[in-house]
Amino acid sequence: MQINGQQYLSVWYENAKVKMIDQNKLPLEFRIVEYSNYLEICSAIREMTVRGAPAIGAAGAYGMALAAQNAPDEKFRAYLRTARDELTSTRPTAIDLCNGVNYVYENALKFIPDYEHSRLVAVFAAREFAKKSVDDCYQISKIGSEIVPKGARILTHCNAGALATVDWGTALGVIRMAHRQHKDIFVYVSETRPRFQGARLTAFELAQEDIPHSIITDNAGGFYFWKKEIDLVITGADRICLNGDIANKIGTYEKAVLAKEHKVPFYVAAPFSTFDLSCKEGSDIPIEFRDEDEIKCINSNYLANPYSPALNPSFDITPAKFITGIITPKGIFKPKDAARQVQV
Amino acid sequence: MQINGQQYLSVWYENAKVKMIDQNKLPLEFRIVEYSNYLEICSAIREMTVRGAPAIGAAGAYGMALAAQNAPDEKFRAYLRTARDELTSTRPTAIDLCNGVNYVYENALKFIPDYEHSRLVAVFAAREFAKKSVDDCYQISKIGSEIVPKGARILTHCNAGALATVDWGTALGVIRMAHRQHKDIFVYVSETRPRFQGARLTAFELAQEDIPHSIITDNAGGFYFWKKEIDLVITGADRICLNGDIANKIGTYEKAVLAKEHKVPFYVAAPFSTFDLSCKEGSDIPIEFRDEDEIKCINSNYLANPYSPALNPSFDITPAKFITGIITPKGIFKPKDAARQVQV
Repeated sequence: MQINGQQYLSVWYENAKVKMIDQNKLPLEFRIVEYSNYLEICSAIREMTVRGAPAIGAAGAYGMALAAQNAPDEKFRAYLRTARDELTSTRPTAIDLCNGVNYVYENALKFIPDYEHSRLVAVFAAREFAKKSVDDCYQISKIGSEIVPKGARILTHCNAGALATVDWGTALGVIRMAHRQHKDIFVYVSETRPRFQGARLTAFELAQEDIPHSIITDNAGGFYFWKKEIDLVITGADRICLNGDIANKIGTYEKAVLAKEHKVPFYVAAPFSTFDLSCKEGSDIPIEFRDEDEIKCINSNYLANPYSPALNPSFDITPAKFITGIITPKGIFKPKDAARQVQV
Repeated sequence: MQINGQQYLSVWYENAKVKMIDQNKLPLEFRIVEYSNYLEICSAIREMTVRGAPAIGAAGAYGMALAAQNAPDEKFRAYLRTARDELTSTRPTAIDLCNGVNYVYENALKFIPDYEHSRLVAVFAAREFAKKSVDDCYQISKIGSEIVPKGARILTHCNAGALATVDWGTALGVIRMAHRQHKDIFVYVSETRPRFQGARLTAFELAQEDIPHSIITDNAGGFYFWKKEIDLVITGADRICLNGDIANKIGTYEKAVLAKEHKVPFYVAAPFSTFDLSCKEGSDIPIEFRDEDEIKCINSNYLANPYSPALNPSFDITPAKFITGIITPKGIFKPKDAARQVQV
């Protein structure tokens, strides 16, 4: 992605370190942070320095690469197993994280007892996983752009952009590509409480590429549907089930229901790392609940009644019947057919 | 309403001054502010020191009472006409404001040229308007509580409580009454971006009366519908049309669509001062757009990308077909029948 005229990835591996854009600081501060062990990656994922299903998949993969570098020969396998368990438990909903971590884990174990080779392979596998994510997102962007009509007014939720992946983005990749094709689009960016990934990150990415857009509160989507000023909804996903149900950022389901009521197409864009063939349907997906202070405070100042409890589910389930199509690197599929495209 | 064990109204007239609870300071600070001329009331309404359709109706009525006290005999009529125009133009969507202001205006003019009597009548009429609002809300609360099942999990949006009215509240009045009837209810409070009236004010009112509740983001309503954990939705209204369409706080429409999708009853509670017989349908209602910085900043700190524009509609329209019933002081009616109950 272009940031202030320079090319960046959201996360990468360099000189035995994992580097990433600090997404908690954006957009007010652009800062690259670096980590040299997997425990720091665990914290970065937990604190959402890196977020977005494909991006934390890549971060997890790179975290395993760091673990392999730091694992002593005599405890190599046990060290990697602990790293795998700790990395995958940082956030429960996005399945890309498990997929990225396990991919590197399995590759690294193959060459035991040649530990030096295992370490090299771990880095290689992590880079491969991240590179695949970029390629997938590019394909998604190209394929998805076909469903964007000229002049489309598009609603997106949360950030499914280059920051949420490794590059390009999923939903925002489609939007980016449609813009480059001069389709004269306009994007409604729902701010995405409680952490404002829409208002902070999606708006930042769109502004960086001069894509016409406006931030709205999550509350205002319905108003623009009612005014018939939304032609298309595209979001990313954190996990996709066998039956085509998806988990995505809290609030996605509300937009899907509105889209159905207004007969507006609702698309989900995701790489195959987001599919979980072990989940039959949405209710099988674990939903992360985060701290209530994410809702009640901003910068430690209360903006809610301090004496009231808050519930903070981070994701919701959008059943397949609300989804027009899932945009994958291999094409656009009906939700119930999408999982069949995954190569096991 | 009870605040810290003492009885308060949201706004009242005392010693030639209008006093009100500063709703911008709540819940972190409980402060009574007082005003001695109508221009200060205009600012208080515009800056939302007082907000909520019936409450600004009462504030507008009291503003006219102040205007009558301050109007010189020789320009009495012109002064009152200017005050009426300025007060009613402070906020465009809630019709109670026009109704409250006009009620006092018309009564005050009746006794010209007995200006001293006009001044007395202005205060009397304003008090009468506010008292009527309290009585209406009490009736709404009592009548509305009948539709609350035992153990109901209720979603409400924004603040339609005692603060938003003069006392009791509309939607929250119903909830308050159901709680006093020991119905063992639980309230989901959607925080209500951008100004957090749910998280700040509704949560505060519920906590003051120990009514079990939890704040959720506006995004999370859909999740709890999906989990079948919402049995009933009740909101207030800022204007109700002849055909039963309503305007209410932005985000109301999204909840109404979700309620319909999940076959959950969606009720609107409002006094007759909220009806506008000159509006045939929702699209006739002017929607207020407020400053984009309400969305982009909190306490002058950016929480959104500063270089992105934002759109800030404050209200949306919920068409009659999404509304199960309108709870009025005279009973609960189908939306299309409710306007007929207004005494012209």
